[in-house]
Amino acid sequence: MFERSTIRHCKQCGTAVSYRLPDDGDTRERAICPACHTIHYENPLNVVGTVPFWDDKVLLCKRNIEPRRGKWTLPAGFMELGETVAEGAARETHEESGAEIEMLDLFTIMNVVRVGQVHFFYRARLTSDRFDPGHETLEVRLFAEHEVPWDEIAFRTVRETLRCFFADRQRGRFELHQIDIA
Amino acid sequence: MFERSTIRHCKQCGTAVSYRLPDDGDTRERAICPACHTIHYENPLNVVGTVPFWDDKVLLCKRNIEPRRGKWTLPAGFMELGETVAEGAARETHEESGAEIEMLDLFTIMNVVRVGQVHFFYRARLTSDRFDPGHETLEVRLFAEHEVPWDEIAFRTVRETLRCFFADRQRGRFELHQIDIA
Repeated sequence: MFERSTIRHCKQCGTAVSYRLPDDGDTRERAICPACHTIHYENPLNVVGTVPFWDDKVLLCKRNIEPRRGKWTLPAGFMELGETVAEGAARETHEESGAEIEMLDLFTIMNVVRVGQVHFFYRARLTSDRFDPGHETLEVRLFAEHEVPWDEIAFRTVRETLRCFFADRQRGRFELHQIDIA
Repeated sequence: MFERSTIRHCKQCGTAVSYRLPDDGDTRERAICPACHTIHYENPLNVVGTVPFWDDKVLLCKRNIEPRRGKWTLPAGFMELGETVAEGAARETHEESGAEIEMLDLFTIMNVVRVGQVHFFYRARLTSDRFDPGHETLEVRLFAEHEVPWDEIAFRTVRETLRCFFADRQRGRFELHQIDIA
């Protein structure tokens, strides 16, 4: 079974946990506290971002943080409590690029089972071509399709989303793409 | 800020954590371990399920667990590590109803920000009208639209999804619905 990280201690009382089947009929082993009986669940995380575009160009950010420092990515990050998927995508876009955008449709949903993540990208129309990169970003730049540094893209979900974007743009119709990343 | 549950102790070493801004430029307070410096993140959870249908009827499960024991729901539950959104939806359907289904399109995506969840429902064609409820389910039954116990539906996202399903069915075309639950 997939494990993101091993839970060693109870988040409620600090006692060392053991992994076993809960008594409630659950069929998966969970980290359970022998002292206060808290069951600790680990679940997939949502990564949310946008494809910001300006005429025929898309905005990419050069990463200033690991992993893949120096590689190019669409603005995206972990969805936080207290926001919707779209709000998270807009927040990440603002934080990483400083871009002003108009949020459009949900464009890709990608399961990355190997790392326990689901990635969501929205199309977003840039309303200005002035940017203000945050501390996670070395540089923000607009790329036409033939200018995209395909071998320098940080993540497979970003590459797939860019491919879908330019293909849909070519045929003049955007639709939602659902992709499972092996 | 939304908090699902307070983290009191470090999951790595058991030391009592304190909530503060991490030193990495993060703008949200996190539970941080003063001993081993582990940062503990809390993020939204995905709930995944289906709208199983048989001719003009939909399958509902009478809940045998809290919350809302005795109320009716579509089969759904928390997405687990090691599966895609659709695989989780199929698994929950099998576990709660024992129904045999053919998975169809993603039908609703609903943000329930108040509880830090995103709910996903797929349409699923029943390939048999024999069921086998799991331990979480008191009873499984098929309901035509006029038979649905609207006041006895367990969750708002289930009610919204059923409303969308019968409305789309009426007009003869199903599409993806994205809804924010206040």
